[in-house]
Amino acid sequence: MEEVDHLAHERSKAQFDVDAMKVVWAGSKHALDVADRMARLVASDPVFRKDNRTMLGRKELFKNTLRKAAHAWKRINELHLTEEEASMLRLFVDEPSYVDLHWGMFVPAIKGQGTDEQQKKWLPLAYKMQIIGCYAQTELGHGSNVQGLETTATFDPKSDEFIIHSPTLTSSKWWPGGLGKVSTHAAVYARLITDGKDHGIHGFIVQLRSLDDHSPLPGITIGDIGTKFGNGAYNTMDNGVLQFDHVRIPRNQMLMRVSQVTREGKYLRSDVPWQLLYGTMVYVRQTIVSDASKALSRAACIAVRYSAVRRQFGSQDGGPETQVIDYKTQQSRLFPLLASAYAFRFVGEWLKWLYADVTQRLQANDFSTLPEAHACTAGLKSLTTSATADGIEECRKLCGGHGYLCSSGLPELFAVYVPACTYEGDNVVLLLQVARFLMKTVSQLGSGTQPVGTTAYMGRAQHLMQCKCDVRGAEDWLKPSVILEAFEARAVRLAVNCAQNISKAASPEEGFSELSADLLEAAVAHCQLIIVSKFIEKVQQDIPGHGVKGQLQILCNIYALSVLHKHLGDFLATGCITSKQASLANDQLRSLYSQIRPNAVALVDAFNYTNHYLGSVLGRYDGNVYPNLYEEAWKDPLNDSVVPDGYREYIQPVLKQKFRASRL
Amino acid sequence: MEEVDHLAHERSKAQFDVDAMKVVWAGSKHALDVADRMARLVASDPVFRKDNRTMLGRKELFKNTLRKAAHAWKRINELHLTEEEASMLRLFVDEPSYVDLHWGMFVPAIKGQGTDEQQKKWLPLAYKMQIIGCYAQTELGHGSNVQGLETTATFDPKSDEFIIHSPTLTSSKWWPGGLGKVSTHAAVYARLITDGKDHGIHGFIVQLRSLDDHSPLPGITIGDIGTKFGNGAYNTMDNGVLQFDHVRIPRNQMLMRVSQVTREGKYLRSDVPWQLLYGTMVYVRQTIVSDASKALSRAACIAVRYSAVRRQFGSQDGGPETQVIDYKTQQSRLFPLLASAYAFRFVGEWLKWLYADVTQRLQANDFSTLPEAHACTAGLKSLTTSATADGIEECRKLCGGHGYLCSSGLPELFAVYVPACTYEGDNVVLLLQVARFLMKTVSQLGSGTQPVGTTAYMGRAQHLMQCKCDVRGAEDWLKPSVILEAFEARAVRLAVNCAQNISKAASPEEGFSELSADLLEAAVAHCQLIIVSKFIEKVQQDIPGHGVKGQLQILCNIYALSVLHKHLGDFLATGCITSKQASLANDQLRSLYSQIRPNAVALVDAFNYTNHYLGSVLGRYDGNVYPNLYEEAWKDPLNDSVVPDGYREYIQPVLKQKFRASRL
Repeated sequence: MEEVDHLAHERSKAQFDVDAMKVVWAGSKHALDVADRMARLVASDPVFRKDNRTMLGRKELFKNTLRKAAHAWKRINELHLTEEEASMLRLFVDEPSYVDLHWGMFVPAIKGQGTDEQQKKWLPLAYKMQIIGCYAQTELGHGSNVQGLETTATFDPKSDEFIIHSPTLTSSKWWPGGLGKVSTHAAVYARLITDGKDHGIHGFIVQLRSLDDHSPLPGITIGDIGTKFGNGAYNTMDNGVLQFDHVRIPRNQMLMRVSQVTREGKYLRSDVPWQLLYGTMVYVRQTIVSDASKALSRAACIAVRYSAVRRQFGSQDGGPETQVIDYKTQQSRLFPLLASAYAFRFVGEWLKWLYADVTQRLQANDFSTLPEAHACTAGLKSLTTSATADGIEECRKLCGGHGYLCSSGLPELFAVYVPACTYEGDNVVLLLQVARFLMKTVSQLGSGTQPVGTTAYMGRAQHLMQCKCDVRGAEDWLKPSVILEAFEARAVRLAVNCAQNISKAASPEEGFSELSADLLEAAVAHCQLIIVSKFIEKVQQDIPGHGVKGQLQILCNIYALSVLHKHLGDFLATGCITSKQASLANDQLRSLYSQIRPNAVALVDAFNYTNHYLGSVLGRYDGNVYPNLYEEAWKDPLNDSVVPDGYREYIQPVLKQKFRASRL
Repeated sequence: MEEVDHLAHERSKAQFDVDAMKVVWAGSKHALDVADRMARLVASDPVFRKDNRTMLGRKELFKNTLRKAAHAWKRINELHLTEEEASMLRLFVDEPSYVDLHWGMFVPAIKGQGTDEQQKKWLPLAYKMQIIGCYAQTELGHGSNVQGLETTATFDPKSDEFIIHSPTLTSSKWWPGGLGKVSTHAAVYARLITDGKDHGIHGFIVQLRSLDDHSPLPGITIGDIGTKFGNGAYNTMDNGVLQFDHVRIPRNQMLMRVSQVTREGKYLRSDVPWQLLYGTMVYVRQTIVSDASKALSRAACIAVRYSAVRRQFGSQDGGPETQVIDYKTQQSRLFPLLASAYAFRFVGEWLKWLYADVTQRLQANDFSTLPEAHACTAGLKSLTTSATADGIEECRKLCGGHGYLCSSGLPELFAVYVPACTYEGDNVVLLLQVARFLMKTVSQLGSGTQPVGTTAYMGRAQHLMQCKCDVRGAEDWLKPSVILEAFEARAVRLAVNCAQNISKAASPEEGFSELSADLLEAAVAHCQLIIVSKFIEKVQQDIPGHGVKGQLQILCNIYALSVLHKHLGDFLATGCITSKQASLANDQLRSLYSQIRPNAVALVDAFNYTNHYLGSVLGRYDGNVYPNLYEEAWKDPLNDSVVPDGYREYIQPVLKQKFRASRL
């Protein structure tokens, strides 16, 4: 195939230093360097090939994933990769597998919930992968409501053991990744029962399979829960079902950092504050926000490049047709998603800082910022994952019919991403937690307790309840202070309205429940404000590189004004802005789209994604889409033969009238 | 498994006659009867089993579809089914296949575009399936822009033949269903060239494969274009690629009803009005709207039933937890979708009438209503398919984690449905056509030309531009006249605003292009008004059956007020309603949700869908979800063996430290 850069003309139009933007996106020169090396390492290794993934049957697909996981582990060891490098390498292998749960959930569970002694025993085994662990929390009957889990861990003082048991069908562990076929161990969450008393949910390390022959241990029934959404996608993962029939484990396999059971069966709280467990939650959700920006940026990269390649309509005098990226309808759907990818990247970066800050405070026994940090990460997890799932699907639609082909990469990206809206806290349940925190904050206004962190603006509620937006011309919408105040005013007003309506109800609980749909909207407004404000803060920093800061400013304004347009009802209903000002915001948005247009391809180049990682014919770096789409088509198994299997049995008889009833 | 109706209590709460509602949903007693018989026929026949579909590899899946198609044809003949029955049977087989294109596109193309003589020759062959046809229009490089197709059909007066040719890679036919592996013939769309002159796109009947051994004819390259979104889903279809290398066909295989080429190579228009071709488009899009209501109602049925089964949180004193359908957040997402399913059903019914009306007029050479009918069907196709695709995915999310399993039926329903947003006119392109028609209508206001049909309300623009909504209490939002006027005012004001802004641009074309994002919103407003008004008209008819009309009134109001809430920005920005009135609409909406709640399960029972057609463990009629989810899991191929294939090669070596570098 010819080696021409079909997007060279687009790249030549960029008005900023792409290499400098790559550093901004990666977070640092070092991070860019590591990512770049690991991405190339994966892309150049034929074992990590993934273009055939959507055509494989379940068994073949799964075996291939096992192969990749083993090969990745081999390479990590051979090359003596650092922890940072190893985790980057796994990222670019880009295939869900048991390894994710081992490193992402099992190891952190032991670290966070195990005593020093337990960590000393289990972590080295896990670090060397001499044992492989998963995280067995959710059950067939309970996901969101962790306190409703039914699996029991009953202490037997006679033998100094816990008896792990699944008392009902709905208590079957259900969903844990890596459980179905691979894990040798699990962190199992169960109701702790001592002497007939239920102490609620606690964690236990339970061996599931023999380390000799991998067969499930006695009393353990275990399997895969079946096919999931999409081709390839999460079908590479052995999400599992697990039932315990009175399985005994030694007492010291309860994770005892925060509370413990003594030899005598006494239940004790340790002096380690339980709040530490919240720190882990902040950590996990921060990584989810960071993943959201990766997934959305991949989709945007594919859609931007293909929109620059694809031409349709508008040919004049026999000249070429118009690039679809030049249509305003395309721009108004695509550019807000590009801006969102950047917005989520920067709020993710800030969350990393927040996690460090919370950790430091926790170590100093300062729990004051924890509720706010918890609400903030819950809300941002919800908002960014929902927007990303919708955004990927929108990017797919922006690629027209060809986006429906697996070779576009977008169907699998959607299917593999979308569970993020449900796992680690259902997005609606999380927003209600944010709303509850907001209602509490509102109720304390004027009581002397000053709202902190991302809710600090609520301390200015009195001003924000009555301030008037002073936009008079479209250019006023470029002022960060104007945007911030509009978003703050909207968030405060929605929250205060909810609080007032709740106060009219028979009880606060009843009011909260009755108004919960409105509360979701208030929580969304609060989270969008956080994202806008962190983007503005980012842009106010020193950012080196020709034109880089300018582009980020445009993206920041596109993000803010497109959110404003989408939620216009909120802004108008609360009187934060007028219809005239809304119309000016729209005018400004159109102008911003024109400004970003020549930079669009360069802005997705700045993600520095390899063709392997993108996994999309439509998103190829060189834009050489059509010959490659054509070539990909022939790889389908149906094309193995010209005349399809089944012709003699099921097509020929139709054509030859074998099924015609005599009467006709 | 026990035979208990876990939803019996829900069913006992219904306040209306479900059997009477079944008749309303089906359209008539006769339609209900036919649908019921055909659905049971399919459900009871093991060949039509589909619960294993998402686990099959591509080849196996495709062969199985060929088997089902042949079996369906056999049964249709054996049982001497009527056309109506046969098409219902195909509907309930519920699997995309070449048959859809043969009956849905190939046959109608010959009927609509063939001369009487051509129909006499080809239709009997097609009716008996002695030939199998597809519809080869879109190409690799062109979808929406039909006029840009590149395939040529050059008349050769020497041999009295057309030479069909693919001059470029991008001219390859790409996407046609049934083309890749099955069709013997195709309606091929190509640029007609006579004597060096290009007459634009015309249709031709081209034989593709030998009727003896199914091999492609000389000069024809043909294959499948590869895997598509989702497990099962459209992977049962052989969407194809096709290239012609100077393929010759007799002159009489050009579809010549509207224009023809004479023996001498002269291009002539016949006296058949070309507008007849638009009639076909109205027909096809009307069926798409009707399919939208089917797809959305299936998803809503699954989500409603499962939301009544699933319990989470809210247990008091050890009692059962709260059914998730009782949460206001669940209701505010789910009930508008249930209402939309009904709304789309009734607007689809009305479109059927519209098609009949247009056809009658065309036969009487009355073209006056055609542009309006065309815009209306284009817009409704766009609106209902987008809302349905989003709605199915929302229903999936409303089922929490288990909705991500293929056994929930929702992933496949989404994947198989979503191309409806792109085929038969990309939804955004269609909305722009509607917008163009609206701008034309606005420009003619006051000129004496009265707007007709669904745009008649624009004749009252002067009143609607300045009318004030007189809602004072939440109950005022139940008045059809109030709702209608608010929707009419919003639609007119958005359209007139666009027209005014366009008039400020350098040229109308430039203005239209610059403001196209706003124009989309005006088009959406117009289409939503149509749906609301047709629902209101339906509810104003006599509807027999205890409580049936009352439920439909509630659904109608839920549809209208939830659309109003979602697009609140429009209503407020155009001053159609005040913030206070918006808040009252919200209050009314909450009350409507409470009213529909006890009827929700019965309202989805009224769709009369079999468990086979629903294809969802979560949506089972008896609500016995958990044991069946558990049982389904074990059918996954990964559970064929306890220790997975790949253990010795890829898991054991990891655990046994085979990959550890010596240094570590």
